[in-house]
Amino acid sequence: MEKDFGGFKGILIIGLGIIGGSLALALRKEGYKGKIYGFDLNKNRIEKALELKAIDEGYDFYEMIPWENIDFVVLSTPVKTFESIALKIKPFLKDDTVISDVGSVKGDLVLRLYEILKPHVFVGVHPIAGTEKEGIENAKYDLFKNARLILTPVGEDREKIEKVEKFWKDIGSKTEIMDPHLHDFVFASVSHLPHAIAFALVDSLIVLSKETGIDLFKYPGGGFKDFTRIAASSPTVWKDIFLENKENVLHTIDVFEKSLERLKEAIKKEDEKEILNILSESREKRMSLD
Amino acid sequence: MEKDFGGFKGILIIGLGIIGGSLALALRKEGYKGKIYGFDLNKNRIEKALELKAIDEGYDFYEMIPWENIDFVVLSTPVKTFESIALKIKPFLKDDTVISDVGSVKGDLVLRLYEILKPHVFVGVHPIAGTEKEGIENAKYDLFKNARLILTPVGEDREKIEKVEKFWKDIGSKTEIMDPHLHDFVFASVSHLPHAIAFALVDSLIVLSKETGIDLFKYPGGGFKDFTRIAASSPTVWKDIFLENKENVLHTIDVFEKSLERLKEAIKKEDEKEILNILSESREKRMSLD
Repeated sequence: MEKDFGGFKGILIIGLGIIGGSLALALRKEGYKGKIYGFDLNKNRIEKALELKAIDEGYDFYEMIPWENIDFVVLSTPVKTFESIALKIKPFLKDDTVISDVGSVKGDLVLRLYEILKPHVFVGVHPIAGTEKEGIENAKYDLFKNARLILTPVGEDREKIEKVEKFWKDIGSKTEIMDPHLHDFVFASVSHLPHAIAFALVDSLIVLSKETGIDLFKYPGGGFKDFTRIAASSPTVWKDIFLENKENVLHTIDVFEKSLERLKEAIKKEDEKEILNILSESREKRMSLD
Repeated sequence: MEKDFGGFKGILIIGLGIIGGSLALALRKEGYKGKIYGFDLNKNRIEKALELKAIDEGYDFYEMIPWENIDFVVLSTPVKTFESIALKIKPFLKDDTVISDVGSVKGDLVLRLYEILKPHVFVGVHPIAGTEKEGIENAKYDLFKNARLILTPVGEDREKIEKVEKFWKDIGSKTEIMDPHLHDFVFASVSHLPHAIAFALVDSLIVLSKETGIDLFKYPGGGFKDFTRIAASSPTVWKDIFLENKENVLHTIDVFEKSLERLKEAIKKEDEKEILNILSESREKRMSLD
């Protein structure tokens, strides 16, 4: 099928961080012919985005945006800001403008955004293109290329949902549809829990360093660096994810704590068979992913 | 200084797994002129090592080994086997033969091995060259090249300690000396704890998958694969490490559990400031490593 990026002629990206910036660069790279507008509260980011030729025009006041030219809006800020932004921009939107996002939490949030923005259509999107980096200066034109991307539509606006899917397919992402609540449980397990653990692991090494007067961060061998890479992720982005997906995150932490406790007890009792059971089962599962 | 690999003329590697195999291949690659003997209880591994030209001769009975040719022995089996191997080989050793290892636990274990093997000299060694792979078929000639390597000598046998250090320097490792108990605390924190967590994390995803009937391993995005790579490590090797370094491992798990509990409580209470504190502190520390 010919590339038409869902037929959108004017795209507004709200939030010019690494994800918003990478989206703009990807559109350029993949041959998008329409206009790209950027919004950010931070003027430096707008300047950087203009400098990179990522956007055609940049704004830090919603009132100034040429809304008549915009038929697709992508929210690319921390997820906790989505609802207030939706309320702010709603009065400006053209009738058939589609609103979407690139947030890591879906669930009730997409239902609320759908309600807030009605009769405009909101389509939730989560590109699985994680990076611990931040800021438009780290944007990459190929961040979404061949990356998985989950759409979590609600409602029956098939045509507009398909336009959003085509938009991302033309950027090169591998799209799939998922129920928003299933999405939040799955990503609490495979992404939010690992992030919580990575942050806590680094925190525990800070505590252990203080306790002993030995700077453990001088010895980053043994897989520690790879393992904690994601602990360098943006605190604001992740605070929002943990809070917005609170119930799932708390539940997966509980289950993880029990698994760790089981291993700890086996080590304490020197129960070699039980330790081997846990390690072998985990290993087998993990190896099946490669 | 000229390469002489510590002046050792005949090396016996006990245990032809990935580490023992990589050591033999590294010696070849770096121009070692002496003989390399291999011992393994598994005949297939010996055959594979001979096929790879990693070793000159292979044995599965200690009695058959030409001990008169051997002046350096490297233990390269799971750490829990070291003491019984030391007791078995001691009667065969020439007077000035030096014994060493490549194990991940030092502490009391090196003191016990030193006592068992006296008047022969034992020098503990830990190459920080982790891999989750197993078996001589995954051996790599450059596994130790430019890798850090910790020596944990006890006793006053300066000359022999220096020979062992020279051996590894000539292979290309960056050597450093550390107290064996400090070593075990440090590596419990930066390596054994992360491994325990990775095994427990995969276990918790098995539990969550069963609980919900959703195969979470179908969604390995969001950093999960990198994060759990080390959960594919050898169960036997890691069971031994956890047990041999039990007190340190249990203590670091306790401290980590408190850190995770602190983050969990902050999420539960929606204490944004506390969450940001934990995430920002961890991020800053983690970023300082890059």
